[in-house]
Amino acid sequence: MTARVVEFWFEFASTYSYPAAMRVERVARAAGVALVWRPFLLGPIFATQGWNDSPFNLYPVKGAYMWRDLERICAREGLPLNLPPMRFPQNGLKAARLAILEQAWAPNFVRAVYTANFAERKGIADDVVLAEILTQVGADPAAALAAANAPANKERLKTQTDEAIARGIFGAPSFTVGGELFWGNDRLEDAIRWATR
Amino acid sequence: MTARVVEFWFEFASTYSYPAAMRVERVARAAGVALVWRPFLLGPIFATQGWNDSPFNLYPVKGAYMWRDLERICAREGLPLNLPPMRFPQNGLKAARLAILEQAWAPNFVRAVYTANFAERKGIADDVVLAEILTQVGADPAAALAAANAPANKERLKTQTDEAIARGIFGAPSFTVGGELFWGNDRLEDAIRWATR
Repeated sequence: MTARVVEFWFEFASTYSYPAAMRVERVARAAGVALVWRPFLLGPIFATQGWNDSPFNLYPVKGAYMWRDLERICAREGLPLNLPPMRFPQNGLKAARLAILEQAWAPNFVRAVYTANFAERKGIADDVVLAEILTQVGADPAAALAAANAPANKERLKTQTDEAIARGIFGAPSFTVGGELFWGNDRLEDAIRWATR
Repeated sequence: MTARVVEFWFEFASTYSYPAAMRVERVARAAGVALVWRPFLLGPIFATQGWNDSPFNLYPVKGAYMWRDLERICAREGLPLNLPPMRFPQNGLKAARLAILEQAWAPNFVRAVYTANFAERKGIADDVVLAEILTQVGADPAAALAAANAPANKERLKTQTDEAIARGIFGAPSFTVGGELFWGNDRLEDAIRWATR
């Protein structure tokens, strides 16, 4: 029996997670595949590799390529992109704690945070920016921020990051279909095919 | 005026260069795009990043993913793959000096070296293995090895690696179309599309 479920692992600081987040729901729905949104943190994973910054900053030649590649991808997808972003990488901790709440507004929230970061040059660690986005997606900002900062919710994000590590995830975006791992925006279609085999 | 030329930058130690090398000529020909084979060395590029080994060995979690991803790609392409290879990475210096000779047999030679490495578990730095491959592709092994080891040819490979660095290349396989760079086997179709715009 086929699972027909794709789990989408994303991190708000991740550039390639932006085009992935904007299209994953559409692509999954068209294939009749259920989608689970899985925010996690790359910081603890990068730290185990000895990195204290984005590899795109640590390896600037690769970074320069990534920005150009992202431009091409966004142009093809018709996605707005304004470079350079306000800063890179931004701290996505608060946004991830909000995204993991699994409210009905979460997918719209995730897309709006990526848009704020990569198209609107806003600070996604800024409570004012986050509250604006929450209002925009129909959430109660005060209630959502309180829920996000509750100890159990903080712990949930840590647990989810531990689960990412246990599953062999080392970058974002990643997709899992059962025990099968796919890394990168350009592997979304492969993950969908795997789920519908 | 469109160039309609794709340059294919490959390194014999590179795993994803294997499926790329096996399909690049077919894909380019189908699109009416001219193809230039560009062997180069990743070692000097990785050294500038502080790496003295393949990143897939330095970051074993990423390495484990890569081998699984390569299995899926080769299965889809109908390419033989026998893992683990004899060793990883293999030293591709001698093979690169042969591949840069630009003889008519070079494309067949390149494909045979990748097959030896990733499907046949042979040592591609071994003169006996290289001589067998040269014979198989219709070359005179003694003459080819002598030409490969001539000082001017050694220098040519160094110059080509310097050109790769100057063009912002940081990994293999890469494709260039004029000043536009594409990195990875999964960007071949993008490069072809760029050349035919």
